[in-house]
Amino acid sequence: MSRAEAAEKAKKVRFVILDIHGVLTDNTLYYTQSGVKSEGFSLHDRLGVKALTDSGIGVSFLTSKISRADEQMAKIYGVPPERLWGQGAKMAKIDEFERETGLKDEELCYVGDEMIDLAVMKRVGFSAAPSDGSIEARGVADYITSVGGGKGVVRELAQFILEAQGKWDSFMARFK
Amino acid sequence: MSRAEAAEKAKKVRFVILDIHGVLTDNTLYYTQSGVKSEGFSLHDRLGVKALTDSGIGVSFLTSKISRADEQMAKIYGVPPERLWGQGAKMAKIDEFERETGLKDEELCYVGDEMIDLAVMKRVGFSAAPSDGSIEARGVADYITSVGGGKGVVRELAQFILEAQGKWDSFMARFK
Amino acid sequence: MSRAEAAEKAKKVRFVILDIHGVLTDNTLYYTQSGVKSEGFSLHDRLGVKALTDSGIGVSFLTSKISRADEQMAKIYGVPPERLWGQGAKMAKIDEFERETGLKDEELCYVGDEMIDLAVMKRVGFSAAPSDGSIEARGVADYITSVGGGKGVVRELAQFILEAQGKWDSFMARFK
Amino acid sequence: MSRAEAAEKAKKVRFVILDIHGVLTDNTLYYTQSGVKSEGFSLHDRLGVKALTDSGIGVSFLTSKISRADEQMAKIYGVPPERLWGQGAKMAKIDEFERETGLKDEELCYVGDEMIDLAVMKRVGFSAAPSDGSIEARGVADYITSVGGGKGVVRELAQFILEAQGKWDSFMARFK
Repeated sequence: MSRAEAAEKAKKVRFVILDIHGVLTDNTLYYTQSGVKSEGFSLHDRLGVKALTDSGIGVSFLTSKISRADEQMAKIYGVPPERLWGQGAKMAKIDEFERETGLKDEELCYVGDEMIDLAVMKRVGFSAAPSDGSIEARGVADYITSVGGGKGVVRELAQFILEAQGKWDSFMARFK
Repeated sequence: MSRAEAAEKAKKVRFVILDIHGVLTDNTLYYTQSGVKSEGFSLHDRLGVKALTDSGIGVSFLTSKISRADEQMAKIYGVPPERLWGQGAKMAKIDEFERETGLKDEELCYVGDEMIDLAVMKRVGFSAAPSDGSIEARGVADYITSVGGGKGVVRELAQFILEAQGKWDSFMARFK
Repeated sequence: MSRAEAAEKAKKVRFVILDIHGVLTDNTLYYTQSGVKSEGFSLHDRLGVKALTDSGIGVSFLTSKISRADEQMAKIYGVPPERLWGQGAKMAKIDEFERETGLKDEELCYVGDEMIDLAVMKRVGFSAAPSDGSIEARGVADYITSVGGGKGVVRELAQFILEAQGKWDSFMARFK
Repeated sequence: MSRAEAAEKAKKVRFVILDIHGVLTDNTLYYTQSGVKSEGFSLHDRLGVKALTDSGIGVSFLTSKISRADEQMAKIYGVPPERLWGQGAKMAKIDEFERETGLKDEELCYVGDEMIDLAVMKRVGFSAAPSDGSIEARGVADYITSVGGGKGVVRELAQFILEAQGKWDSFMARFK
């Protein structure tokens, strides 16, 4: 898909749903010898989330199971607890969300990196994958970010969506 | 070895034995100032392990000594405790395993990255090494993954084996 | 801006103000499952800070909120507590600092990587950004380091400033 | 210096002294919010240390201050406590070591990455630096490894020295 076609799709986006592992992280889980898990997140993505929400576009994090690390990260990113979705059945969660909000598939953006994400990526109006996502995810994505998971995927995507919608300049203006 | 020759060998694989350090990790050990050790694993490999086992191919992890981090990782990857092998003498472990199961060398795949892995790699029917494995390991491997250790080696290898065996499409079908 | 023009600006620098996240780190925050945060810093930058301060150029770290990790790092880098500035309003902090010290904009160097840094970067005499800083930060920077955040940005910048001021050789001389 | 000239120098090496930060690590220090420090080491280097010591070449680790992380790592690498040298004055430590052992400068190899290492690097018979060492360290090194600090510098260097001395094949033979 051309960048112009992707921008056309991005124009309609009113809500962005982010897979956590492989998108907000680089898919690496660290374990200590006593079994304590850690993960790495990028502060660049905090700006991406802020740019979206300040411009009136909702954001949620969707993963199969929420860890304390995800909760800490969501707090720092300004994503409220009710938008931190832990549910294995991703399609069912999207169904439920659309019923509650009245939003339509074409108004949703979904960012994923693996095969479990493919069905949702095909369903929504605008889908994206990180540069180091699986071949399958990159194959169905409308937009592939230049950076890999955990390196600012949301930052880059937010800019792409907001530029398509003509909202980026007013967001940037406050930093001048 | 050509990709076609490697695929011929991969067709016969019924069991995959994975070295942990350098394959499931990038060989980095992190230590805190109080001596607590951590390691990083990739969630991409979880899908690789799942693809293999769901397609009827067994998987085990073989390393000289099992740490709690390895146990946690194996649990997340769905590898049962009896398949988490901690034994310095890798050849002897393979002997024992073949006696117990009746599997033959040509039905085994082994993935390793260092000199301690060379003997087993030469023995089994199909061997693989990560892109950042040692020159010696890459020199004897039938297949070298495009990614480095800890970045999805098992994910890529599982796809290669299952495509060779004509089983990948049916695994993928469930994600459509 | 040409390297020669940047060096002209660097000649006047008497004080260097460093953003922490994305400059001294690569913007990655690590969280454990119980919510403990970590960050990575480069020892190369310790030499950079030392080179600057030993050559009579002051150094401070400026970030919106100081963590214990920042305090530990500052101690190792030899930056005194009063130079560890935690304040969201970066411009106001610069105003206050100039009033207290009598230093002028053209005597300050500021290193930043994100949009929140743009205003200060445009204000000071000499600004720099890491190679993996945001497009916007790199767009306004007088100097872009060859290395990314957390990989020795201050080390490289210190050498550039001190070479411009003819002070690098005398710093190096002690290591001969 | 040509590879052949470096090999000539490597032939005489009887003892290898390794800087820790930037050589066995990539110079990154991780700090938690409560100030706990960690560092990452590569298991590839364990093989390098083993290859050297099994071939009759001694190995020590030299850094300004020894942490518990260094102690844990040295244990795993098989470097005995008396060879873990924590001393800021590196030249003085080399003087003392030569007096005790009767070894001469030309029989020593030193691996370093920063300016504090330059004097020792120039003094010993054979010096090396990692690919991501400082410009100054790479400038004086007889040999620059293809890998960066913490990614197997000692593994590569051990192979280079032992090949120069005709001892690598007999070390490798045990893995066949």
